[in-house]
Amino acid sequence: MTAAVQSPSVAWADGAIEIIDQTRLPHELVVVRLDTVEAAIDAIRRLAVRGAPAIGVCGALAMVVGLDEARAGSRDAARAALEDLAARIDAARPTAVNLGYAVSRVCDAAAAAGNDPAEMRERALAEALTILEEDRLACERIGEQGRAELAGTDVILTHCNTGRLATAGWGTALGVVYAKAAAGEPVRVFACEARPLLQGARLTAWELMDAGIDVTLIPDSAAAALLHSGRIGAVIVGADRIAANGDTANKIGTFPLALAAKAAGVPFYFAAPTSTFDLATPEGDAIVIEERSADEVRSHAGRYVAPSGVKVWNPAFDVTPHSLVTAWITDVGVLQPPFGSLPSARAPSEVSA
Amino acid sequence: MTAAVQSPSVAWADGAIEIIDQTRLPHELVVVRLDTVEAAIDAIRRLAVRGAPAIGVCGALAMVVGLDEARAGSRDAARAALEDLAARIDAARPTAVNLGYAVSRVCDAAAAAGNDPAEMRERALAEALTILEEDRLACERIGEQGRAELAGTDVILTHCNTGRLATAGWGTALGVVYAKAAAGEPVRVFACEARPLLQGARLTAWELMDAGIDVTLIPDSAAAALLHSGRIGAVIVGADRIAANGDTANKIGTFPLALAAKAAGVPFYFAAPTSTFDLATPEGDAIVIEERSADEVRSHAGRYVAPSGVKVWNPAFDVTPHSLVTAWITDVGVLQPPFGSLPSARAPSEVSA
Repeated sequence: MTAAVQSPSVAWADGAIEIIDQTRLPHELVVVRLDTVEAAIDAIRRLAVRGAPAIGVCGALAMVVGLDEARAGSRDAARAALEDLAARIDAARPTAVNLGYAVSRVCDAAAAAGNDPAEMRERALAEALTILEEDRLACERIGEQGRAELAGTDVILTHCNTGRLATAGWGTALGVVYAKAAAGEPVRVFACEARPLLQGARLTAWELMDAGIDVTLIPDSAAAALLHSGRIGAVIVGADRIAANGDTANKIGTFPLALAAKAAGVPFYFAAPTSTFDLATPEGDAIVIEERSADEVRSHAGRYVAPSGVKVWNPAFDVTPHSLVTAWITDVGVLQPPFGSLPSARAPSEVSA
Repeated sequence: MTAAVQSPSVAWADGAIEIIDQTRLPHELVVVRLDTVEAAIDAIRRLAVRGAPAIGVCGALAMVVGLDEARAGSRDAARAALEDLAARIDAARPTAVNLGYAVSRVCDAAAAAGNDPAEMRERALAEALTILEEDRLACERIGEQGRAELAGTDVILTHCNTGRLATAGWGTALGVVYAKAAAGEPVRVFACEARPLLQGARLTAWELMDAGIDVTLIPDSAAAALLHSGRIGAVIVGADRIAANGDTANKIGTFPLALAAKAAGVPFYFAAPTSTFDLATPEGDAIVIEERSADEVRSHAGRYVAPSGVKVWNPAFDVTPHSLVTAWITDVGVLQPPFGSLPSARAPSEVSA
């Protein structure tokens, strides 16, 4: 296991993106440099960088890398490159709304910058770095909102990974945990392993242990029994896309967690920045769910754990109906649907600080 | 992957027990000979033989192996040996009631046989083989009862492994599937992988493909989304211990399946022989749940998939409240609780046939 580290999950360094390759954790901490847009798209697709906020930031920075590769000589060529890049990067993963949100913002900001391709590039980079900084600040605010909402609740059940590996800050659902710990409040986490790719086992367990926070790993299927046992004060998970009515897409296994929490009378929260809200999507049935490869389920570390030819259904996300959710902990408050008019997620005065 | 085979999951051969070592599947089909009671207990503990009915049969036969090892010279010595063996074998795994039921029957039958240790041993073997044959017949009857109950339902979701590897026959929940297939009715199975030990991926997928039955593997956490999608006609699972009020212990992950089935309006069935009913246990809270080792969750095939020192909670079973269950498919009918007076599970005239 790797020793404690300070590397951010995603950063801009000397004209390229640097990410922690999350597929190598918890065995090795490897920082990978992404200096082509194809490398960035591949990193997003193979989950080397993952977590809705982190892939939003990575996608935004990938727009800049792509512009540098395009070497556009005119405003029109740069605009065409931006639109092409936005479409390609957004298609890397379909479910998390943060990716499309981030590349659109970079595209729009650069396109509005003027006629000079160099100026457009500088504006694209500034917007991408603003998105990164906004995400870091949003995580802090989510943590504080969640800490206030969950005062007196010290045993948290979570799913997948929503911490500093999943965002540009200290996380969304895990941000609440880190905020409690930072305030000196008692906090203890049960983490679902999150099959098939084990982000809970590989990443959440690793980063919480790294931070000195008490964590116990469980198989996903043990969550219902754990909730029934009365040992859990609240469930907090992240989100990949939140529809206007509150139906929320998140890592596969979130919906059964919400059902089990409801049955046990345990509060169930999503924690997400406002960039995860998709008010153009009226309800959960309209959310496109990414299906991933069969081998993620039938093999592990190159060895088959099932008959090699068995058919597999491997959706990466499910949708939790809003009726199962206690509240949505966001950077702008603890919210209830319908989300017709969210307070602005951007706070330029703070962002420029 | 291993080719089609006819080996039974557990059998008596030339004075010893033969089992398929299920820890080696689906990679290798290995038949292991258990000729000491310690070897039999170890095989039960490490899940080389598993499935409530199969461990009942293995435990019954282990009583005979143990008597042969004891070489008791008197009735009293043989009786003492029987009681000691029953206690040791029953302690191998605590949750499935079939194990205690089977060793008690062998113990009582042998003790009642007379004064001759050789005669007691013969009676023990006869009782163990009767239990084996009863289980085979019970599976057939469960299959037929389930086929009648589920006429017109052709897409089944199941959990863990409940087929010919888990019983002395063609299985309990999978017995219903095999009965449908044998009758030429359409049937298609979605199988949860059953973390942490992947009995669904390793065993159910293997034996259904071996039998030519359409099977699709899913992560346990995808079951709720699958049920919500409307593609599943019924959930059928096995059972390890059924309390008098109908609360039922089964493989961890069964309870959330039942919650998701209820939410989706999909019928949810347990399929089990009457030997799995424990009428002395009034309700689910009284059932002892086996907790297994942390390394089952944090490592796979000798390689850690999580930080090696992370704490783990790894219960092998959960308890599904009777209120979530449509019915219990048994060898004596499709039943509803409370189970105060079950019809007899034994049918000596058929057993001797």
